[in-house]
Amino acid sequence: MQDTKPRDRIAGLVLARPDRVLGMEPFMADVVQGIEEYFAGRRCSLLIEFTADVAGEIEIWRRWVAHEYVDGIVMVDLRSDDPRLDELVRLRTPGVLLGGPELQAPITNVLVDNAEGARAAVRALADLGHREIARVSGPRDMVHCQARDEAFIATCAERDVQGQVIEGDYSEESGREATRQLLTGGPMPSAVVYDNDLMAIGGLSVAKELGVAVPEELSIIAWDDTAVARLAHPPLSVVTVDVHGLGAIVGEAILAAMDGADVTTYHVPKPTIRLTQSVSRAVITHS
Amino acid sequence: MQDTKPRDRIAGLVLARPDRVLGMEPFMADVVQGIEEYFAGRRCSLLIEFTADVAGEIEIWRRWVAHEYVDGIVMVDLRSDDPRLDELVRLRTPGVLLGGPELQAPITNVLVDNAEGARAAVRALADLGHREIARVSGPRDMVHCQARDEAFIATCAERDVQGQVIEGDYSEESGREATRQLLTGGPMPSAVVYDNDLMAIGGLSVAKELGVAVPEELSIIAWDDTAVARLAHPPLSVVTVDVHGLGAIVGEAILAAMDGADVTTYHVPKPTIRLTQSVSRAVITHS
Repeated sequence: MQDTKPRDRIAGLVLARPDRVLGMEPFMADVVQGIEEYFAGRRCSLLIEFTADVAGEIEIWRRWVAHEYVDGIVMVDLRSDDPRLDELVRLRTPGVLLGGPELQAPITNVLVDNAEGARAAVRALADLGHREIARVSGPRDMVHCQARDEAFIATCAERDVQGQVIEGDYSEESGREATRQLLTGGPMPSAVVYDNDLMAIGGLSVAKELGVAVPEELSIIAWDDTAVARLAHPPLSVVTVDVHGLGAIVGEAILAAMDGADVTTYHVPKPTIRLTQSVSRAVITHS
Repeated sequence: MQDTKPRDRIAGLVLARPDRVLGMEPFMADVVQGIEEYFAGRRCSLLIEFTADVAGEIEIWRRWVAHEYVDGIVMVDLRSDDPRLDELVRLRTPGVLLGGPELQAPITNVLVDNAEGARAAVRALADLGHREIARVSGPRDMVHCQARDEAFIATCAERDVQGQVIEGDYSEESGREATRQLLTGGPMPSAVVYDNDLMAIGGLSVAKELGVAVPEELSIIAWDDTAVARLAHPPLSVVTVDVHGLGAIVGEAILAAMDGADVTTYHVPKPTIRLTQSVSRAVITHS
């Protein structure tokens, strides 16, 4: 081997998922794929481990760092008062956080404008005449869900739309439960914005079971442009973020951090909205 | 930390993919997820790296072993005269091969009965009256594709079916190309068996574009029971292998190998076939 070659680097990523949401959802699979593609040919590997919660994640980080298994850590799904920020600084390991907000801590982050995505969804639906819009959110202790919640509620208020939020956990089953509640529990919204693709798929199937026509009676918008959303029938309208491209930026960011670059904030293109046959103009049944 | 705890183990997996088939297809994402779930809570992590070909994979293995980054290696997609088998033995690293055949080399393998899946598909279609069946295979230098090819041709012969095979590369685009060739290039088969879900999705979309009704004019069977197949419209019939469960068995096998277990052959449940609305009885147009 030649000494001029850069040495190998290993970035670690822990996915903390409750038992119910086992495994890698499409969003995270696409992010991982984007990171791996950036790493390919650059003598970088990604070390992945699953655990149940943030405490388990910190335990894994400590083991990894103690054994020098990793040169850097990628952190996702920031929570309120997240103990991982302090821990990452304490471990003195280069780190990258996917998702905002702007941090005080000396950690590179890749900022996604979550609020803008929520605003775009409400505006598009309001422009189509929808006046009662529901949002099925992810877990509310996740900072990006809070940013989306706030922007959703604020934009509904601006546009004179009745907005309501139900909390889900990103599983298809929680999308089913929330949608059943929305479609059978009183005045029905004419549109639902789901916080990911799996919950939207769950919602779509419940609407079919209940005989609620999509999009004629119910418009559906999902989040994240993944194959799951594109392959649904009808294909789902989405708040589009190029998830795969996002992963590549995370790969670039953690590689730079492991190579000693200064703490940086990366901005990714703002999310936009792509409307398909899962959304239609609201039918005005009364004035 | 207590000394009684087992030490950490890291298994490495390289995905060798040509540029055209970048990233993690649904099958491999499910396998990785199954491995990770088996590893969760067992102080095991999976190190993943992408590269273009088998030569690149071997180079990565050598680096990993030289730096003691991994305690074991998971190998997938065995090729004819695959140089990786000798290399893995030479590296003296515990290894697990996903997929057969029975090996002479001292490497644990997880056997999938690929021939049985191909036989089941042809039999099901022949029972429905199909007499001209095409198969769109994966790359023919992959050993599991060869096993499927041979069983497909042999079972067609047994059942007096005209069988033909077109080679694809597992990408959606190659499924599109192969299907266009089948549907426009002469006598049309009444059924196509695709070697994975992405190629079947590509084939389904070409059939729609050409106005060939699925399943009335063309029956479609995919391979692997992934979300992509289930979410298609119509949902795709599949040669079902519980891919996620398969991944968990690979996780169990590599962990045992890293812990010093003897070389073993694991058998997974035989593939079966699940028929959905993408398959119908053949319409006999002439005798």
